[in-house]
Amino acid sequence: ITSKLPNVSTSIFSIMSVLANQHNAINLSQGFPNFKSDQKLIDLVSNAMNSGYNQYAPMAGNIELRQVIAKKFELLYNTTYNPETEITVTAGATQAIYTIISTFIKPNDEIIIFKPAYDCYQPTIELNGGKTIAVQLEAPNYNIDWNEVKSKFNSNTKMIIINTPHNPSGAVFSVDDMLKLQELTKNTNCIVLSDEVYEHIIFDDVQHQSVCLFPELKSRSFIVASFGKTFHNTGWKTGYCCAPKELMHEFQNVHQFNVFCVNHPSQKGLADYLQEPKHYLELPQFYQTKRDRFLDLIKDSRFKAIPSQGTYFQVLDYSKITNEHDVDFAKRLTTEFGIASIPLSVFNNDNIDNHVLRFCFAKTDETLKKAADILNRI
Amino acid sequence: ITSKLPNVSTSIFSIMSVLANQHNAINLSQGFPNFKSDQKLIDLVSNAMNSGYNQYAPMAGNIELRQVIAKKFELLYNTTYNPETEITVTAGATQAIYTIISTFIKPNDEIIIFKPAYDCYQPTIELNGGKTIAVQLEAPNYNIDWNEVKSKFNSNTKMIIINTPHNPSGAVFSVDDMLKLQELTKNTNCIVLSDEVYEHIIFDDVQHQSVCLFPELKSRSFIVASFGKTFHNTGWKTGYCCAPKELMHEFQNVHQFNVFCVNHPSQKGLADYLQEPKHYLELPQFYQTKRDRFLDLIKDSRFKAIPSQGTYFQVLDYSKITNEHDVDFAKRLTTEFGIASIPLSVFNNDNIDNHVLRFCFAKTDETLKKAADILNRI
Ligand SMILES: CSCCC(=O)C(=O)O
Ligand SMILES: CSCCC(=O)C(=O)O
Repeated sequence: ITSKLPNVSTSIFSIMSVLANQHNAINLSQGFPNFKSDQKLIDLVSNAMNSGYNQYAPMAGNIELRQVIAKKFELLYNTTYNPETEITVTAGATQAIYTIISTFIKPNDEIIIFKPAYDCYQPTIELNGGKTIAVQLEAPNYNIDWNEVKSKFNSNTKMIIINTPHNPSGAVFSVDDMLKLQELTKNTNCIVLSDEVYEHIIFDDVQHQSVCLFPELKSRSFIVASFGKTFHNTGWKTGYCCAPKELMHEFQNVHQFNVFCVNHPSQKGLADYLQEPKHYLELPQFYQTKRDRFLDLIKDSRFKAIPSQGTYFQVLDYSKITNEHDVDFAKRLTTEFGIASIPLSVFNNDNIDNHVLRFCFAKTDETLKKAADILNRI
Repeated sequence: ITSKLPNVSTSIFSIMSVLANQHNAINLSQGFPNFKSDQKLIDLVSNAMNSGYNQYAPMAGNIELRQVIAKKFELLYNTTYNPETEITVTAGATQAIYTIISTFIKPNDEIIIFKPAYDCYQPTIELNGGKTIAVQLEAPNYNIDWNEVKSKFNSNTKMIIINTPHNPSGAVFSVDDMLKLQELTKNTNCIVLSDEVYEHIIFDDVQHQSVCLFPELKSRSFIVASFGKTFHNTGWKTGYCCAPKELMHEFQNVHQFNVFCVNHPSQKGLADYLQEPKHYLELPQFYQTKRDRFLDLIKDSRFKAIPSQGTYFQVLDYSKITNEHDVDFAKRLTTEFGIASIPLSVFNNDNIDNHVLRFCFAKTDETLKKAADILNRI
């Protein structure tokens, strides 16, 4: 009995987290905060359970939650999505991405993605018989060569997946990138899947360029967002996606048979919590402080920081230290030195190794200090 | 832009629940309890959040939860699954079913299902390019003609989906059914997907015939189970599936890219709660009492009850009342009489209408009384 993904191995996040646990290492690999979610939010979810939000939510999501999501778009991007028809709450961003790809990708469709790429895109494309067309970006700037993208774009290009702020590099798309993308896809049937899960984790007053800011782009795009990354509870598995209603209708046709709906108490708690926009407006400053602290703590180490403008990840170049392959070095850092990271080669075309590792700084100051102490003596 | 499921309409559960809300009708359509989940369980989930279970669970699920699931199989079925390799916690049973089908079904594979069938099987099969081969069962006994099944079984039969206790009919598979299924699939590559979400809701001392009781069957089967249906919290979206490790490995390859993992606080709360098996051992009696009360309340009505041995649904034949199509009558019952049900034709081959409706009796005694008052005057 063979499956449709026989050659996929366990995700690097599981591998590194398991290794970190086995060796009692500081785990800066898989991206999750090690500090507590706001007690207020936790209490709101408990209240939701106590007041009876324990049965199926509507398939598209709790309506109050969809309404505050719509308000967020008005507040931040001066545009909106209709909560009745253009927003669906999902069991995390990954489930949104998986469902979008499963809804639209047929055998032999081509999907352009940018590498290094978050590890769920490609297997999901292949599961659906699609062809991944990769555009490799290079450290340290991870700039996009739009001529290369154009040369790979054709009438089979069913979808382009972008991710800004970009995991793992921390690069963000510029206005110019967005205009180039808009120009490229105009008058085509190409869908844009815009993974914006780190929209609120962006630094140095850089503006997040959401696809919804560009009307022509918005009309062909899904935006995917995550509450887990925004509110420090990746384990609640709540996110959402937005798209014009024709696209969202097709998405929901599949979504209803995948999960039907999403954990209701979390949805109700988040709906109440999001009544106060400060809860996400304060996030960029919170994480910028963490990033700056981490960079300051390791400034004298032999690791060289690649500039990061967003996400809670910092990529470090270790080429001054060793010539080892990044997967080997990441494993050795975990087992011998007690600090776990993610080797970037696993996200690259042909596993190209640039001697860089990704460290998650969504950690308490104490953890960051301990991590820096280790990095400083390597 | 076309999707792969362009012709799917909104699920009957959403349609009837929305209609029920609009008309302030008693909602016996979509299957969910209207009484509260055990406060003890709710408190355990709140405790889990307060003590920090807010980040990603392991991909296969919280290990304590997988361990108590394994214990359940020992206790009830005198067999087990390895919690390390043979159990995965899912975002509800629907997500397990969707992922199993997506993992294994390739274009032109044939999948045998029994109709009336829960409404997610067929679209999920078709999304993956598979062919649904339906075996229609007939009221009132919904017996399976295994010769018919055999005549439809061939080397393209990649999967057989069974569901016992059966939603919507309330019929259960006998030992003889299971032996016939085992005989049919022996020495083939056919996978059995056994939807056992109502395993604990079974009446009159009938024994649930899980596929895991039949070693040859177990070796080719996925069991799908649901906490929502067992612990009165369908909105938490937690379930699980079990299979021999080779099959489970393939499943997890896909599962990790669909949802990665499942709401962690619910998992931890359920793990603690399941330490006491009485919480599920008491369930058959609890629901048998509800069923008996409901049947007793409507015994003088013009609706005729089809015998139900399991699930929290009761099918009623209304042919003494009207000749209307069941979808029309279900809608009219909702809008004119204030009681919502599910018309069975939507689950049948070619929408065959037998003038039967499904009513969910997972409701407070007060609601059942009010519902019966309506049914008695129709
Ligand atoms: C789903 S586990 C991966 C978490 C994450 O977003 C990351 O580490 O990049
Ligand atoms: C996912 S909504 C359907 C609930 C259910 O199991 C049913 O009513 O049969």
